[in-house]
Amino acid sequence: MSDQQAAPTRLNIRRRGLVLILASPSGAGKSTISRQLVQEFPSVKLSVSVTTRQRRPSEIDGKHYHFISKDRFTRLRDGGELLEYAEVHGNNYATPLEPVEAALDRGDDMLFDIDWQGTMQVYEKLRTPERNDVASIFILPPSMAELRSRLERRAEDKPEVIARRLVNARTEIAQWEKFDYVIVNDDLDGAYQEVRSILLAERLKRARRVGLNPLVDDLLGTTL
Amino acid sequence: MSDQQAAPTRLNIRRRGLVLILASPSGAGKSTISRQLVQEFPSVKLSVSVTTRQRRPSEIDGKHYHFISKDRFTRLRDGGELLEYAEVHGNNYATPLEPVEAALDRGDDMLFDIDWQGTMQVYEKLRTPERNDVASIFILPPSMAELRSRLERRAEDKPEVIARRLVNARTEIAQWEKFDYVIVNDDLDGAYQEVRSILLAERLKRARRVGLNPLVDDLLGTTL
Repeated sequence: MSDQQAAPTRLNIRRRGLVLILASPSGAGKSTISRQLVQEFPSVKLSVSVTTRQRRPSEIDGKHYHFISKDRFTRLRDGGELLEYAEVHGNNYATPLEPVEAALDRGDDMLFDIDWQGTMQVYEKLRTPERNDVASIFILPPSMAELRSRLERRAEDKPEVIARRLVNARTEIAQWEKFDYVIVNDDLDGAYQEVRSILLAERLKRARRVGLNPLVDDLLGTTL
Repeated sequence: MSDQQAAPTRLNIRRRGLVLILASPSGAGKSTISRQLVQEFPSVKLSVSVTTRQRRPSEIDGKHYHFISKDRFTRLRDGGELLEYAEVHGNNYATPLEPVEAALDRGDDMLFDIDWQGTMQVYEKLRTPERNDVASIFILPPSMAELRSRLERRAEDKPEVIARRLVNARTEIAQWEKFDYVIVNDDLDGAYQEVRSILLAERLKRARRVGLNPLVDDLLGTTL
């Protein structure tokens, strides 16, 4: 289902979906922007990862993660069924390939919240000579001072966790050149508009607009 | 000079300009969209071609074209000073390279109204392993019937000229796959919004945002 961006009389051109990667250091605004994107665009779906870690009481299986066993993870990985995977504190996190391919085939976009290492794995599978099904955006904070105060204002973490997030932020920011687009989140509304423009533009890339082929055939076949 | 797209407090990130190619068959809406783009964005400049044909009374040298001699054209071409050139009805038309490079260096975008052959030449010079300074958009009409009635409504051409434009339209449309983005102009406002999103997104490509390097250096250099 496509999103109506203009007057309802506009031609509905069938399209292939894309994977949109939003990456940023913790606190740079990625989650807020993701939420707004999913809210505005029904055909943008949040990717739900699988994980081998224990479910927390507040989490719902299938919503926050698909909680799976270590054995199942190993089978998925060894069977080539994972688009990307990582290990964090001894637990595995991964994106299964099949739901992504299905989404792209039916014209839905999949929003990924992953780091630079996950992004490199996604490029390997979805960006080849035969296909380019991914676009990646890195969101920078305007300054480290601003990043720190956002983390403190969120009041979600203890001071030592915030300190660690700031150290990790450097590691993530150092990989900024691996991303297609880079935006600075100095103003949330402005940053959201930028991400929105990128999504809309990427949807207009010729190779994704599979419904144009019949339209062009009609144009070229029409008796003048 | 960059265009203010959001609250004036936003960081002004220095950027490299891009060449934005708008191509379409005559009557598909390219001129209207170009005019709106130049009006909305002060840093989008219309590229002024050189030509060896005679100036028409209504035309102004330096505004519609730079009118030059055949000798000068030959010298420019043989000296490698042309970004692209074509011959139409025995006259030469071309885009000099130097003003384009200057615009890109200072962060202005250059809007090109050229056909697919000109586009291929621009790719050759501006899209290499070392640089990607161009984005191209093809504008399709929603149908040939609609294209015909727009040309008739414009009342600019005699019936035989319209007939020839429709034949040429087919030749242009047949090359649609050479363009990065393709939009259908079934609704002018919607089509303009699409071109606008593409311009904004292309400006956010990491490689063009040269002002991010000092920002990232600051972020990575800040004592936490």
